[in-house]
Amino acid sequence: MIRIDGRVSTQLRPVRLSVDALDFAEGSVLIEAGKTRVLCAASVEEKVPSFLEGKEQGWVTAEYTMLPRATQTRTSRERDGRVSGRTQEIQRLIGRSLRAAVDRKALGPRTITLDCDVLQADGGTRTASITGAYIALHRACSLLVRRGIIPVHPVHTAVAAISAGIVDGEVLLDLCYAEDSRAEVDFNVVMTDKHEFIEVQGTGEGGTFSRSAMDNLLALSEQGITELLNLQREYL
Amino acid sequence: MIRIDGRVSTQLRPVRLSVDALDFAEGSVLIEAGKTRVLCAASVEEKVPSFLEGKEQGWVTAEYTMLPRATQTRTSRERDGRVSGRTQEIQRLIGRSLRAAVDRKALGPRTITLDCDVLQADGGTRTASITGAYIALHRACSLLVRRGIIPVHPVHTAVAAISAGIVDGEVLLDLCYAEDSRAEVDFNVVMTDKHEFIEVQGTGEGGTFSRSAMDNLLALSEQGITELLNLQREYL
Amino acid sequence: MIRIDGRVSTQLRPVRLSVDALDFAEGSVLIEAGKTRVLCAASVEEKVPSFLEGKEQGWVTAEYTMLPRATQTRTSRERDGRVSGRTQEIQRLIGRSLRAAVDRKALGPRTITLDCDVLQADGGTRTASITGAYIALHRACSLLVRRGIIPVHPVHTAVAAISAGIVDGEVLLDLCYAEDSRAEVDFNVVMTDKHEFIEVQGTGEGGTFSRSAMDNLLALSEQGITELLNLQREYL
Amino acid sequence: MIRIDGRVSTQLRPVRLSVDALDFAEGSVLIEAGKTRVLCAASVEEKVPSFLEGKEQGWVTAEYTMLPRATQTRTSRERDGRVSGRTQEIQRLIGRSLRAAVDRKALGPRTITLDCDVLQADGGTRTASITGAYIALHRACSLLVRRGIIPVHPVHTAVAAISAGIVDGEVLLDLCYAEDSRAEVDFNVVMTDKHEFIEVQGTGEGGTFSRSAMDNLLALSEQGITELLNLQREYL
Amino acid sequence: MIRIDGRVSTQLRPVRLSVDALDFAEGSVLIEAGKTRVLCAASVEEKVPSFLEGKEQGWVTAEYTMLPRATQTRTSRERDGRVSGRTQEIQRLIGRSLRAAVDRKALGPRTITLDCDVLQADGGTRTASITGAYIALHRACSLLVRRGIIPVHPVHTAVAAISAGIVDGEVLLDLCYAEDSRAEVDFNVVMTDKHEFIEVQGTGEGGTFSRSAMDNLLALSEQGITELLNLQREYL
Amino acid sequence: MIRIDGRVSTQLRPVRLSVDALDFAEGSVLIEAGKTRVLCAASVEEKVPSFLEGKEQGWVTAEYTMLPRATQTRTSRERDGRVSGRTQEIQRLIGRSLRAAVDRKALGPRTITLDCDVLQADGGTRTASITGAYIALHRACSLLVRRGIIPVHPVHTAVAAISAGIVDGEVLLDLCYAEDSRAEVDFNVVMTDKHEFIEVQGTGEGGTFSRSAMDNLLALSEQGITELLNLQREYL
Repeated sequence: MIRIDGRVSTQLRPVRLSVDALDFAEGSVLIEAGKTRVLCAASVEEKVPSFLEGKEQGWVTAEYTMLPRATQTRTSRERDGRVSGRTQEIQRLIGRSLRAAVDRKALGPRTITLDCDVLQADGGTRTASITGAYIALHRACSLLVRRGIIPVHPVHTAVAAISAGIVDGEVLLDLCYAEDSRAEVDFNVVMTDKHEFIEVQGTGEGGTFSRSAMDNLLALSEQGITELLNLQREYL
Repeated sequence: MIRIDGRVSTQLRPVRLSVDALDFAEGSVLIEAGKTRVLCAASVEEKVPSFLEGKEQGWVTAEYTMLPRATQTRTSRERDGRVSGRTQEIQRLIGRSLRAAVDRKALGPRTITLDCDVLQADGGTRTASITGAYIALHRACSLLVRRGIIPVHPVHTAVAAISAGIVDGEVLLDLCYAEDSRAEVDFNVVMTDKHEFIEVQGTGEGGTFSRSAMDNLLALSEQGITELLNLQREYL
Repeated sequence: MIRIDGRVSTQLRPVRLSVDALDFAEGSVLIEAGKTRVLCAASVEEKVPSFLEGKEQGWVTAEYTMLPRATQTRTSRERDGRVSGRTQEIQRLIGRSLRAAVDRKALGPRTITLDCDVLQADGGTRTASITGAYIALHRACSLLVRRGIIPVHPVHTAVAAISAGIVDGEVLLDLCYAEDSRAEVDFNVVMTDKHEFIEVQGTGEGGTFSRSAMDNLLALSEQGITELLNLQREYL
Repeated sequence: MIRIDGRVSTQLRPVRLSVDALDFAEGSVLIEAGKTRVLCAASVEEKVPSFLEGKEQGWVTAEYTMLPRATQTRTSRERDGRVSGRTQEIQRLIGRSLRAAVDRKALGPRTITLDCDVLQADGGTRTASITGAYIALHRACSLLVRRGIIPVHPVHTAVAAISAGIVDGEVLLDLCYAEDSRAEVDFNVVMTDKHEFIEVQGTGEGGTFSRSAMDNLLALSEQGITELLNLQREYL
Repeated sequence: MIRIDGRVSTQLRPVRLSVDALDFAEGSVLIEAGKTRVLCAASVEEKVPSFLEGKEQGWVTAEYTMLPRATQTRTSRERDGRVSGRTQEIQRLIGRSLRAAVDRKALGPRTITLDCDVLQADGGTRTASITGAYIALHRACSLLVRRGIIPVHPVHTAVAAISAGIVDGEVLLDLCYAEDSRAEVDFNVVMTDKHEFIEVQGTGEGGTFSRSAMDNLLALSEQGITELLNLQREYL
Repeated sequence: MIRIDGRVSTQLRPVRLSVDALDFAEGSVLIEAGKTRVLCAASVEEKVPSFLEGKEQGWVTAEYTMLPRATQTRTSRERDGRVSGRTQEIQRLIGRSLRAAVDRKALGPRTITLDCDVLQADGGTRTASITGAYIALHRACSLLVRRGIIPVHPVHTAVAAISAGIVDGEVLLDLCYAEDSRAEVDFNVVMTDKHEFIEVQGTGEGGTFSRSAMDNLLALSEQGITELLNLQREYL
């Protein structure tokens, strides 16, 4: 079956990484996956959240937003003090995933915030954010090492993420928006370069899924993540 | 291995269901799993959200809260207009899970809101909420049928949920708070009585997990959910 | 005249007190007055509000909420950051009433928060909250004494509250919702076991009231409160 | 006993009424009671709240604020979206009290909002607001009658209010701030020109009060309100 | 051309200044310009914003509001936590303008807040606020000197402000609301008594303006401000 | 004098315009002026604000934000429901400036929103936003004409903007951040291609300015804007 954008079912969209996309951030990358574009910036601050004070370890956290015209039609900004459930879920997921990559003791008492701002959204923005934020995080940590602020590079594991889903009964890798919006099942998978899982989120969107369907989706995701991990390595 | 509360690794906590716990709600149940207690109320309203207007189908949604003294020490109320990410994730999960149980065309243009208020929290509040909310939902729909408001019962699938996790390398079913707070891996699984999955959420909390660990956790969860589905059936 | 629920005009609804309704709170009670049910929890925290810092005395405060389906039809949660005037009035009243029961110097530099969560509302929720919160407060203080945290029990006066009103020209004690919603005059009275008043709030709801009507309402309230104080004593 | 400002215990502070204090409002008055000054404006709008739509009757409501430098030291504005409990209690009280003065059917489907803005606060701002707002309301209604918008004047009862309290065991009328801040008991009383009560709010602030103390406070309040009703009459 | 209120094009509205309009504020004035009335209060507080801590200099800031019935028809209060863009612009302008009048080192580590509350609005409220706030500020500083709190008067420059605009092609000084609401061009100008500008804000409201029109508007504004500076001097 | 980035005093920073920077927006451009980068998107919606309903004319409005890591150190997102005064001033300025370019009757009953998101901030973000937003607006209108939705192109005037200021007594065009942060005087000027002004905002930041200084700043700004208008023309 040929997909809406000409791919086969097991194929990723073309991924482009532009590192150092910003002049001031300690680490940054613009990640493009098809029409999806996310600007990922890592900011280092010499402070920790109150629950870590005096504990001699650092923190890694993330914020995620979509620009209003990232989408096909304009979406209102989340400006009224209520960050939507979707946004909160995504930025919590990004933060958890990246924390799994870092030795927070080695990072020391500082915070790295990963701002993932979606310039354009065509599906897979949360997984692109994770894959891109990993690069921004790694480069920011390398800078800290080069500047002699920390002695040992605190990133011990590479992290990447991809989506997979079932559309019209077909198992597909890396859904674009047109596919995602009518998927029966939607998986987001985060893995390390040791072939371990950090997070698996599978949802029957208006449907349910069997154990064997899940097995297929996980295998496909692992294959896609392996490709992304190879790509990341070129920039680190 | 004997667990902190005397259970074996594959054992659920004792579950108690008190149906019709409220006088005014269309359906209600107090679900207790060990010390965890959730009051689940189903409210029927003859209106639909704006995105469903004129579409001749209904909506099922959920709200989740913990009373301030549900917890070991008092937790502040979410009263400042910012519902936390955790709360939003949970109530979105409950809503999605219950929508999978219902034929929304058969429900007709009305909304059923499932209020899950945690009176006491000892781990597993989100899965207890789903298991209890299913009963409240089913009873509310039965009432609509008895009153002649809808001709066909719109619930087509039973739904229940459980947690499982890895604690000190051990795979355990139905974590209590003391276990949950130091788990390496945490899974929440929602299934139907057709042995299909609605949702799988697995997170490495300060760790990662292999494919075979995931297989064990899913098998254990399925066993626990089967027990819960049997219990639910006695009240419907 | 026989009332809507079969009572005579001077009769309280049946009151049920379930002490230690929660496992974690320092003091707790579920109070039921007819169909009205309020879960009252006392939480002790070793801190004081900023205006009491360094003053060697404690604080007693209250929060009040109704669960969404406490009411005949569902009421929206107060989640948008604006706590309603009604809610604020009630929780300020509960706090003031309970502070009158306590020697705050004897309590020492700690705060007791009384969470009154209305599980079901059929009139009289604010007075039931006060009557119940007194028990939770007393039991929490007894625990502090038993644990040796404070040497002298700081509760020096018992406190209970009741409503009375004029419905169709008739003076009635302890209004249920059906009565309350069409009352011409509505009184809430808080008293101590020394037959002194802590608070009297009388409102002409769409009417006015004479001095002699007020006298009748106060006498009836005092009689009802005396019954409640006797009941409380059994649990302390 | 001579009071802090030279009055005897049963004496009101000098009251000054400046009617038509604003050029645009349908009715307005600046009321001064000692150093307390409240600008009361009545605004007529040809709309009703949604719960009165189609019911052919009007609405009367109030808003209350203190300017930041009304007080001895500057008080922050309530600008963060959270109107304090105190402010809400007061504006609800003003609204209820004024609604008791009006035949809402005769007013017809329009809303009169009474804005009570405290320019300077030296105790008794809520009762001065009620006494002043009554004049603004009456004059706005007179204007509606003169303009032929409504045929019959809808104000059927005059309304005024005063505070009384117990300070150092002494029963005092019309407390100024220095007295109010150390009162043992504080009463706010709202009455009509038929010697009926609209509202009685009595609070033991750090104390309790007996039935006979209450009787004294009510008698004193009635005397003060009678003086205020006479004064109001000169401007209507 | 005779204007709507009988003035010629270069004429200010009558200005009235009532100093010490409040009893508690360190400095205060009620400024009236035609029907526009602004109550300006200066409050001194012995603290500085966090960005000035330890820097041995003071701060001057302003807040601006309109009472709801300042306007021809009632305007809602800004109570929902969102201060409008217009309000924020105005209070930032007042603050900047007054800071230009003060030697903040001489003021020492304290904050003067200028509350400008518009009791009635008929155009020119922001410029009347600046002209009035200057007097309140100066008098508050004089009080600090008299009390020996600061040795040298920190106000080194007088400040006043006026509006000018083009209405139907005519250049007019000090627009009233009826003129302002249909002006093609609107200027607000703030100047010192050294004939220097602090702020020039010119806006083509539904139009544009040439360089020579701007020259006319600035000359007219300078003439009006000179009159206001003379008037201010009588009260300082 | 050679400036910090090597320019002479009358020189603009290099400007780069990348039109159609987004795939979904009706018009878009990425404008870069030195290190300042603003992504401008024009979104057309077939609705008007309520104050224009039934008036057969359109609306043009703007929103402005900075990404958190646009700045040298990370700036918190404006997510708590309170859009800062600075942000509101800027987006109101952008909106007013662009409305001056458009015949709103010719636009018809639709709204064009200009989202100006600052990806990187090195001074002059508000003027770059106006210059860029004009292009996005023009291209969106051209699209509406090409699609036959409106018959006549509604943009009748080109609009561009620049800053100028006085730094160390020197009059400079197009301040970068390092210059802006220590400028004595700061001007923002918006002009049309007919050499008319739309907006002039001049502020003495910690200083005042004479009439002749203003004349120099305006002349320099006009020269810079003429260059920008020429550049814009290449893309329209």
